[in-house]
Amino acid sequence: MPEFNNERTSPVELSPDDFRKAGYKVVDRIASFLDSLPSKPVSPEITRDELQKIIGIQSLPNRGESTEKILEQAADLLFKYTTFNGHPKFWGYITSSAAPIGALGDLLAASVNPNVGAWNLSPVATEIEAQTIRWIAEMIGYRTDCGGLMVSGGNMANFIGFLTARKAKAKWDIRKEGLAGSKAHSLLVYASKETHTWIQKAVDLFGLGTDSIRWISVDEKQKILIDELESKIKADKENGQHPFMVVGNAGTVSTGAIDPLNKMYEICKENDLWLHVDGAYGAFAAAIPDAPDDLKALKFADSIALDPHKWLYVPLEAGCILVQNPSFLIDAFSYHPAYYNFITEEEGSSINYYEFGFQNSRGFRALKVWLSLKQAGVDGYKKMIADDINLSKHLYKILDSNPNLEVLSQSLSITTFRFIPPDIDANSNKVSSYLNDLNEKLLHQLNEGGEAFVSNAVIEEKFVLRACIVNFRTTIEDIEMLPELVTEIGIEIDSKIRPVDLKSNK
Amino acid sequence: MPEFNNERTSPVELSPDDFRKAGYKVVDRIASFLDSLPSKPVSPEITRDELQKIIGIQSLPNRGESTEKILEQAADLLFKYTTFNGHPKFWGYITSSAAPIGALGDLLAASVNPNVGAWNLSPVATEIEAQTIRWIAEMIGYRTDCGGLMVSGGNMANFIGFLTARKAKAKWDIRKEGLAGSKAHSLLVYASKETHTWIQKAVDLFGLGTDSIRWISVDEKQKILIDELESKIKADKENGQHPFMVVGNAGTVSTGAIDPLNKMYEICKENDLWLHVDGAYGAFAAAIPDAPDDLKALKFADSIALDPHKWLYVPLEAGCILVQNPSFLIDAFSYHPAYYNFITEEEGSSINYYEFGFQNSRGFRALKVWLSLKQAGVDGYKKMIADDINLSKHLYKILDSNPNLEVLSQSLSITTFRFIPPDIDANSNKVSSYLNDLNEKLLHQLNEGGEAFVSNAVIEEKFVLRACIVNFRTTIEDIEMLPELVTEIGIEIDSKIRPVDLKSNK
Repeated sequence: MPEFNNERTSPVELSPDDFRKAGYKVVDRIASFLDSLPSKPVSPEITRDELQKIIGIQSLPNRGESTEKILEQAADLLFKYTTFNGHPKFWGYITSSAAPIGALGDLLAASVNPNVGAWNLSPVATEIEAQTIRWIAEMIGYRTDCGGLMVSGGNMANFIGFLTARKAKAKWDIRKEGLAGSKAHSLLVYASKETHTWIQKAVDLFGLGTDSIRWISVDEKQKILIDELESKIKADKENGQHPFMVVGNAGTVSTGAIDPLNKMYEICKENDLWLHVDGAYGAFAAAIPDAPDDLKALKFADSIALDPHKWLYVPLEAGCILVQNPSFLIDAFSYHPAYYNFITEEEGSSINYYEFGFQNSRGFRALKVWLSLKQAGVDGYKKMIADDINLSKHLYKILDSNPNLEVLSQSLSITTFRFIPPDIDANSNKVSSYLNDLNEKLLHQLNEGGEAFVSNAVIEEKFVLRACIVNFRTTIEDIEMLPELVTEIGIEIDSKIRPVDLKSNK
Repeated sequence: MPEFNNERTSPVELSPDDFRKAGYKVVDRIASFLDSLPSKPVSPEITRDELQKIIGIQSLPNRGESTEKILEQAADLLFKYTTFNGHPKFWGYITSSAAPIGALGDLLAASVNPNVGAWNLSPVATEIEAQTIRWIAEMIGYRTDCGGLMVSGGNMANFIGFLTARKAKAKWDIRKEGLAGSKAHSLLVYASKETHTWIQKAVDLFGLGTDSIRWISVDEKQKILIDELESKIKADKENGQHPFMVVGNAGTVSTGAIDPLNKMYEICKENDLWLHVDGAYGAFAAAIPDAPDDLKALKFADSIALDPHKWLYVPLEAGCILVQNPSFLIDAFSYHPAYYNFITEEEGSSINYYEFGFQNSRGFRALKVWLSLKQAGVDGYKKMIADDINLSKHLYKILDSNPNLEVLSQSLSITTFRFIPPDIDANSNKVSSYLNDLNEKLLHQLNEGGEAFVSNAVIEEKFVLRACIVNFRTTIEDIEMLPELVTEIGIEIDSKIRPVDLKSNK
């Protein structure tokens, strides 16, 4: 038996004073970072090789280093070699700038480290998560006694919606028998072609296979075609298949299109199908007074995925799933290990979040959402979301008035557009392919330049640039530089790469 | 078109000065919390009703509140109504105390908010995650060119191992056809009865159903019976079934048992099966010099799940999956949405973590692990892990020397035991059931008292108390109070609840 000292020394321990000292330093560094952010390049210009040389591909260190030194190094690296989604000119993907209070929330959560898997491990954290979920539901007009869970992001939220639907609609003991219990490959899900790849991942990972997706076409606004949806469901039912779920999009990832959720709900009701809405991006826009009618129909959905780390501007990771009837969520996910012995109160009054999703141990990601909602209030969020949308509309206008740019869509806070050299006929086949190539190169050069950051979409085989403003730091001045910047880069690249036979077809 | 001011006001924005002010306050509060932690009750004594009254079940607030006030309130609530796994006397479940530098890492990560889904969104964060994964592999003797990913915890890590195995071993196009493509319900997984519930969740969620688990019995040390494993695989193959995966435990959740991984590897090699090891708890103990041989066999596993938020003492959430051959991981998880347009360098040199797992957007949970590994060095970790194990062995000794306590197991840093009143015959049936009841009540009263916190296990139908020391703050003095405390409470409850017909059977 080894000898012990009463005082154990643990190299990861920090005394309260050392923690305070290190904490102040990190806070100072972050404050300076926030101050300098608008003047930094949005993204670093560096290759993987260069960066690896800077970090150094070392072996696992044997000895520890000073806390201060390590934190300084981490701050130096992060403040330099990151693509800053908190920058006022970051409009790529759907990654929002992060509310600073959210970072302080994460600090507090990680310091106390509640395990929000079970009530008695984290009484107050569990209750705050439950309150946060009620607030989110209230904000988008959903019933506040719904089931819900904070998760890592949109994929996981959608996966939970999918699995809850599958369990609710499978008419056999799917837990025990698996999909084989259906005796035929028949569980079918319906989604528009604009649906995010989570749906392919879901059917693959959860064992249905991509054959089980019925892809429905979209109209010119990238919204699902209701007639096609209805007729495909009908045909499948007549063929003895088992449709179980329809996916509606509340803000498609490419263009922010909102599917006709009202009509989809009618179809689902008629056919006993689960309506899941992927509102990861757009659902929070249901809170603003002039939200589209179809966003107001969110309340009919059986489940909704939505991402506080998008339009509530909290730091990664914070996704959320809401399920109208909480018991379906528990049906799909609850297991009781023998070693879990949580004091259960009166039936129905306990809440142990490990029963609601994939995870057992869970961090307290709800805290940053709760703090941000309290800090801004729902009025504050309505304003910020409406500002983002109005900026996107303004961007549409100024892009559209530029003769070298074609604007393809504007919905929610997403605007898509592309550069077309003035002396070219955009409608010939050869030119179409050239324009795709040109705009792809333009995108890379634009992003590498560090003056602004956008991403892309593919709309009717056209490669387009896509600015998605989920950024409370973006002002009108920030976006007004974009048309000229894009045009400049476009003209430059065009002058270098245009094939001889495409010269001046006009 | 709305009017804009050039200066947008966003209620979630904080000026650098306000951030500094708020940040200092939070740091101060945490420093005081760390200082007072050992003198706090380990867990709060409060009911759900009381707590809800304190928090208040309010509606979503319309107006925002002051940042300072909100953070004060959050700190007040969290420092009071939480079960503190950072307390020196917390030995429940397998939830470790959290290294303070980890919380500062989360603060830094959330402030910069890199999206570690793709290299060009988070160059330095991606490289730090890659380095962290190499370090973790190196620490446990695994190949450092393995594939790997940081995830939320043990369940997700095990799920990824499971799905990677399934894709690698399915001989048809499972992505497209799903499980139905196997033409028979035949994919089978083998695991000991002591395996964590993740395995039931996995087969359920991923569509195989619990019928696809072959439960293998364990010996008296809760290790899988190799002969039974081998003969079941043989019988299933002869019956035309499709065994694909064997699960080994490197630290079972109940007693810390380590399965005979060396022998399991031989069986897997012979039968072309995937060996996945659930080392969520125990894998890091492979780093210590006198690690059991079977832990050293981790290097043979096709995949390993392990939790830095357990024995690397980082705050929740930090799980990790390692896969020997990285291409299997990508095969199982990579999808390329049209709107993802990441600059790919030379084949094989790029790394976009969205291709490795469930998530697309990902936070920077690797940072806290990287910081902690640098702070303590692997030597520091070897010491802390060995100290935990030695404390657990010492606990075994002092429990065993107490005549009112029966000690059932000691492995890694888990000790299991129960209270047996001195005047009772533990071997009669009636008494067995009474002892279970008695020890369950004892557990609740112990934990509610706030002097220490343990959880439970069920071993051969005996309800036992279980102390798992994954706590760099625990000293010998902390554990030496446990036998007496348990005995005191046991005697008190026994005197109140023992049925008349069980009185003094000795």
